[in-house]
Amino acid sequence: MPKRVDHPIILGIVGDSASGKTTLSAGVAQILGEEHCSIFCTDDYHRYTRQERNEAGLSALDPRANYVDILEQHLRLLRRGEPVLKPVYCHTDGTLGRPRYFRPTEFVIAEGLLGYTTRAMRDCYDVKIYLDPEDDLRVKWKIHRDTTKRGYKLEDVVASLGRRKQDSPNFIHPQRTFADIVIRFQSPKGANGSDTQLDVRHLLRPTLPHPDFSPLFDGTSNAGLHLELARDRDGKPVDVLEINGNISDKRAERIEDLLWNLIPEAGHLRDEVGRIDIANGANGANKSHPLALTQLLVGYHAVKAAMGVRAY
Amino acid sequence: MPKRVDHPIILGIVGDSASGKTTLSAGVAQILGEEHCSIFCTDDYHRYTRQERNEAGLSALDPRANYVDILEQHLRLLRRGEPVLKPVYCHTDGTLGRPRYFRPTEFVIAEGLLGYTTRAMRDCYDVKIYLDPEDDLRVKWKIHRDTTKRGYKLEDVVASLGRRKQDSPNFIHPQRTFADIVIRFQSPKGANGSDTQLDVRHLLRPTLPHPDFSPLFDGTSNAGLHLELARDRDGKPVDVLEINGNISDKRAERIEDLLWNLIPEAGHLRDEVGRIDIANGANGANKSHPLALTQLLVGYHAVKAAMGVRAY
Repeated sequence: MPKRVDHPIILGIVGDSASGKTTLSAGVAQILGEEHCSIFCTDDYHRYTRQERNEAGLSALDPRANYVDILEQHLRLLRRGEPVLKPVYCHTDGTLGRPRYFRPTEFVIAEGLLGYTTRAMRDCYDVKIYLDPEDDLRVKWKIHRDTTKRGYKLEDVVASLGRRKQDSPNFIHPQRTFADIVIRFQSPKGANGSDTQLDVRHLLRPTLPHPDFSPLFDGTSNAGLHLELARDRDGKPVDVLEINGNISDKRAERIEDLLWNLIPEAGHLRDEVGRIDIANGANGANKSHPLALTQLLVGYHAVKAAMGVRAY
Repeated sequence: MPKRVDHPIILGIVGDSASGKTTLSAGVAQILGEEHCSIFCTDDYHRYTRQERNEAGLSALDPRANYVDILEQHLRLLRRGEPVLKPVYCHTDGTLGRPRYFRPTEFVIAEGLLGYTTRAMRDCYDVKIYLDPEDDLRVKWKIHRDTTKRGYKLEDVVASLGRRKQDSPNFIHPQRTFADIVIRFQSPKGANGSDTQLDVRHLLRPTLPHPDFSPLFDGTSNAGLHLELARDRDGKPVDVLEINGNISDKRAERIEDLLWNLIPEAGHLRDEVGRIDIANGANGANKSHPLALTQLLVGYHAVKAAMGVRAY
């Protein structure tokens, strides 16, 4: 790709525990091409082991329990194209291990809980995403992940959710306001509980040059896709894009075509990725148009940033 | 002290294994005031554990076995006054541990084996010292240290010295040429083998503003102290200052007074340190004028650098 900026593109994906950061990061990395893209986890910057935090009565989400200034410094160095020796936190046993050498690639997806905590951090990103799923959905995802992939018992996950009840509003939620796009997955009314049925709602702040969606609203059918001007909860103007889980395949493909056509520079990526719906699920049953289109939309902004396009 | 520069003073102390880096660093730190001074070990930047190096057939002294670019970056950040999260190598068992947060103080003594390897590293120092003791002396020191403080058997130390025979000329010795001062401790002819009898020879390159020693040569007695113009082994002009182990207490005190008087800004430090000979040894039997005066001379340059005095 004829990249026009001389630094790595830093794409931030921030959100609470089990808000879907890993899924979104992996999907975007696939779109951008895995050899051009590396994933940088900002949750490794813990100052203390799990035992030390317990002894000190500190939450892992508390900035005081993290090397906030070092994370700022490392994001700044990555943005300049420099490698960093990053700390490594072992989520399995809560210990701090040997650091890992990390050299930024063309695109760096920086994902984690506290990535937008300070102004100095926020200044390092080209695109800032905040994941804000419906809370019932997030709790369901967290229980599923922690009991199947992280070896916790159900009661431990529930207890952990209780302990963190104050941490999320104190440390995580305030970052929502700094994102260019706030992404909310939510269950439609009367849904059967399957994630493939989820709707997605993108709150688009005017801090990025969003694609022109108007060709999609040519009057043939508006089903499954909505765009409207709205006020965010703080009263500020935003665009709200909604993609419903039951959008037709044909209409989803039209959105996909529109987005790819707006980034002709990334045509070779499209050839590699193929139909992203197919790339995302091993079989048709897993496919979710809202998820696939969300990944493509985020990838679109990363490509535009690499071309030097910025709103502000 | 009315420090006139707005960055930490980085004092480099580089030399082969057991060349006296720790002793010199500790003495200089005491002169500069331990609350103003921190010691930064550049030997922690190993890329591999001992076992991994053995498997790969790599020496710990080989730049390829070290994060050379990260060490460059961290020295640069320290020089700007920024903290770093430095790696930690455990010399006892050869493993890599959790990194350590290091915030630079007014003076940072960066000591280790490979501190002057690259131009980017060398540009970070205000004062560069290279320790180049007589090799017989260094071998004696190494055997003593490794068998008493590091728990090695004599045969292991001898084997290690053999293995490193090529590493020193390949990786360590080439750094000598970049130092402002090359310090060589050596045994005088017919010495009794005690380190308190050692002579010291300072090779003073014109890359630093050295003190004017001429008041010391007023004709009353030249015994124990010599200064002469010479050529280094590469043919380049240098001053050579020699202080003999048998220099009289009175003459050593005159040198000490001269040096302290040249840095009136550090008068309060002198009050804290007292007579450095006394500060350095628990009893009179351990005192070495050449060592004490070497420490003071290095401290002198650190103070001058803090005052913004530079030769080039």
